[in-house]
Amino acid sequence: MNPLSPAFIGELSALLGADGVRHSPAQKAVYASDAYTLEKSLPGVVALPRTTAEVSAILRLCHARGVPTVPRGAGTGLAGGSTTGSDAVLLCLSRMSEIVSIDLPNRRLRAQAGAINIALTKAVAADGYQFAPDPSSQGASTIGGNVANNAGGPHTLKYGVTVNHVLGLQIVLPDGEILELSADDCGYDLVGLVTGSEGTLAVVTEVTVKLVKTPEAVRTMLVVCRTVDDATTMISAIIASGILPAALEMIDRTILLAVEEAYKLGLPTDAEAVLLIEVDGAEAGLNRQAERITALCREHGAVRVEAATNALDRARLWTARKKSVGTLGRLAPSHATQDGVVPRTKLPQILREIAAIGARHKLRIANVFHAGDGNLHPVVLFDERDPEEVKRVLIAGGEILAACVNAGGALTGEHGIGIEKRDFLHLVFSPEDLDIMAKVRGAFNPDGLLNPGKLLPFGGNCCPHLRRPEAEALLNLTKTRAAAV
Amino acid sequence: MNPLSPAFIGELSALLGADGVRHSPAQKAVYASDAYTLEKSLPGVVALPRTTAEVSAILRLCHARGVPTVPRGAGTGLAGGSTTGSDAVLLCLSRMSEIVSIDLPNRRLRAQAGAINIALTKAVAADGYQFAPDPSSQGASTIGGNVANNAGGPHTLKYGVTVNHVLGLQIVLPDGEILELSADDCGYDLVGLVTGSEGTLAVVTEVTVKLVKTPEAVRTMLVVCRTVDDATTMISAIIASGILPAALEMIDRTILLAVEEAYKLGLPTDAEAVLLIEVDGAEAGLNRQAERITALCREHGAVRVEAATNALDRARLWTARKKSVGTLGRLAPSHATQDGVVPRTKLPQILREIAAIGARHKLRIANVFHAGDGNLHPVVLFDERDPEEVKRVLIAGGEILAACVNAGGALTGEHGIGIEKRDFLHLVFSPEDLDIMAKVRGAFNPDGLLNPGKLLPFGGNCCPHLRRPEAEALLNLTKTRAAAV
Repeated sequence: MNPLSPAFIGELSALLGADGVRHSPAQKAVYASDAYTLEKSLPGVVALPRTTAEVSAILRLCHARGVPTVPRGAGTGLAGGSTTGSDAVLLCLSRMSEIVSIDLPNRRLRAQAGAINIALTKAVAADGYQFAPDPSSQGASTIGGNVANNAGGPHTLKYGVTVNHVLGLQIVLPDGEILELSADDCGYDLVGLVTGSEGTLAVVTEVTVKLVKTPEAVRTMLVVCRTVDDATTMISAIIASGILPAALEMIDRTILLAVEEAYKLGLPTDAEAVLLIEVDGAEAGLNRQAERITALCREHGAVRVEAATNALDRARLWTARKKSVGTLGRLAPSHATQDGVVPRTKLPQILREIAAIGARHKLRIANVFHAGDGNLHPVVLFDERDPEEVKRVLIAGGEILAACVNAGGALTGEHGIGIEKRDFLHLVFSPEDLDIMAKVRGAFNPDGLLNPGKLLPFGGNCCPHLRRPEAEALLNLTKTRAAAV
Repeated sequence: MNPLSPAFIGELSALLGADGVRHSPAQKAVYASDAYTLEKSLPGVVALPRTTAEVSAILRLCHARGVPTVPRGAGTGLAGGSTTGSDAVLLCLSRMSEIVSIDLPNRRLRAQAGAINIALTKAVAADGYQFAPDPSSQGASTIGGNVANNAGGPHTLKYGVTVNHVLGLQIVLPDGEILELSADDCGYDLVGLVTGSEGTLAVVTEVTVKLVKTPEAVRTMLVVCRTVDDATTMISAIIASGILPAALEMIDRTILLAVEEAYKLGLPTDAEAVLLIEVDGAEAGLNRQAERITALCREHGAVRVEAATNALDRARLWTARKKSVGTLGRLAPSHATQDGVVPRTKLPQILREIAAIGARHKLRIANVFHAGDGNLHPVVLFDERDPEEVKRVLIAGGEILAACVNAGGALTGEHGIGIEKRDFLHLVFSPEDLDIMAKVRGAFNPDGLLNPGKLLPFGGNCCPHLRRPEAEALLNLTKTRAAAV
């Protein structure tokens, strides 16, 4: 059924009220893409439910009418996981933003999927608790989106990714069936399976998360490094010493310059790399850890180590990291944030390769990293109004991914596959691997109506509008190039 | 095909050599059950592969001949997960016990599935590393079995369960296909899904685990408590203080008496409960944590707090816990270890209910707990030669589980479902929940030939010999009783 047909829109409006349905082109324009802006496409219609019962009703209707449905939170996803098309309903959960319940004795909080990440911590901060996963998008991204992408963040190194903090999920299956999943349950770990499944198995409507104590004390240091090699040597030395920092982030010179220009934080602009290192925990022993880190960095060639002496100072150091990608708007009209993983020891090598890829395609590439995890975010600067340059960005992105995989790494650290990387799964998975994943999807989503064409390469049940012959041609080019490296 | 037929045994022997196949009743007798001894049954034939290629060949053969296959490690499982029958091949991985590789810079170790848990730590202890999950069976249980059951242990409270330490799995699908899964991979979290799936999705042949630094320092305390209520109040106070102990174990008076009689450790025999509390980490600050714990315990009525002052002393305190179940052989010819979970705050209530259940069925029940996790192990003492008493043990076990669920808990903390609890899943799962789990199983194991009848209640594809009308009758009895509570 065409989701633009008056009959379908009438049925949807009967479920949600006219206010819950958006179908004019102007209304739909803001939903043309998420933060992956290389491919834009208006949805057929946008549905804005307020309750799980409404989500269930929408899915039941779409299932009955054979209409594809694409779930979306705040649209901060960087891999096109909520990109949709004119044949589909965009199921936007942003209105489902309530904190449902807080249980401090058992350290858990339940929120609707559309609640903003930072709102979870705000709800319990006064009681000395926090929700640990803190993606840089935490002021905008939703907990449902964090679950869908198994989001990380700067503090992943110590605290783990989203799945390590999810205690339960309320999900709606593509046929409208509502299930309550608990991580405490026996049987197959369905909470773990749905987390990170990018909305291809079920729509997450409520999330129960683990709360952790706000650390008693924190020490934050900024380390100015002459070279990236120096910086990675320091990282290895710190990890080898047995200290587990709460965060271990790196930003390169391009980012430093942009941040400094935007915020005048007094950051060094002569360094090739800067490390942001944080340790947290009980006050006792923390100074010793900070001193040991400072000594190790000096030993391995640090130009300077600055320690934050108060909360304001700490915020200043973190601004450099959290606002880094945002400030790149000063350098170019568009940017595409890549997301790859390499073994920590391969960071210098991969940076050299990324620089070479940028030079080859005449693209400026800045770099921010969760360096402790080996999770890198090269940011390609470009102008999306120039279709020829967009093509080069896509090719360069593919080459960066291939380089990560060749270095023994992975295709994504935390941003997911979406549509961006779906065609690159062949680089890491065998046909048998992909076959078993397609079967797992089929167990939940047998008709492929839920978020079709995402996460997995083309199967039998994808939206035709998401087939990208051009992308496949680019992939072949990338593969040839990767093989030649 | 009958796995006892000379033709089938001939085919199997051609794959493994005569030495790799056991088919005489005397040889098979030791495989009649795992550590869940309430139901025993000889396998059709036992296959003892040495390599993944052999496992693949066995599964391919069984798949072609329609013969059910049951994987098994050391047989320490407490829920009958490797119980088999005369129509099936028991695939025993105990000969696959090699440490395949050690990569200290990246803190990972790869072992064959049949490697003993403690062997992993022994292989890296001299370098200052350990494999954290330490089930009480760690001297015998295999890493493959730990993965199959997502095993925990006393240090789960701080370090998490097995899945938190698995970086990769080599698995063989029921049709013989070999896959390499990595936790770093994008796409669905198949490592997480297979971990804890009790051999119903695939046979795990090699495991890559995370290594953690051996803690710089440890403080171990034994706290003598007047009542179980006192002990649980102390536990809540410790957790609320923000300290995360490495272990927080409880044993009751019955166990204390048995351990003391066996080992003469000088433990108190007048206490209703004893807590074993351990903190670990950097030396700095650890004394302060230990002092704080001691103060909190005293404040909440501790009769005495003993601190281990050296490694020998620490080993003595741990003996009380790790050997606790083993010593029960002094009190009765047989024992059945239950495994339930309740919210920590419900520990006193559940202990009173367990005592009442024991009294009602004239059964002596001892208790050991991972108290910090609310994971309890009531141990029912009995004589397995008395069929009437066995029946009472089964009923009491069901009632204990129902009581855990009624208290807001779960059916199993770490021992799995196996055959023991399969019929109790209805207590926590809706038919829709079980349906989606059956579909997930079907994605991997479509013919149900791999470990049939385990983990899930009866479906269409279970071994007839595992249907237990008697157990179902008991379940109904249990349900009626639970409803009456």
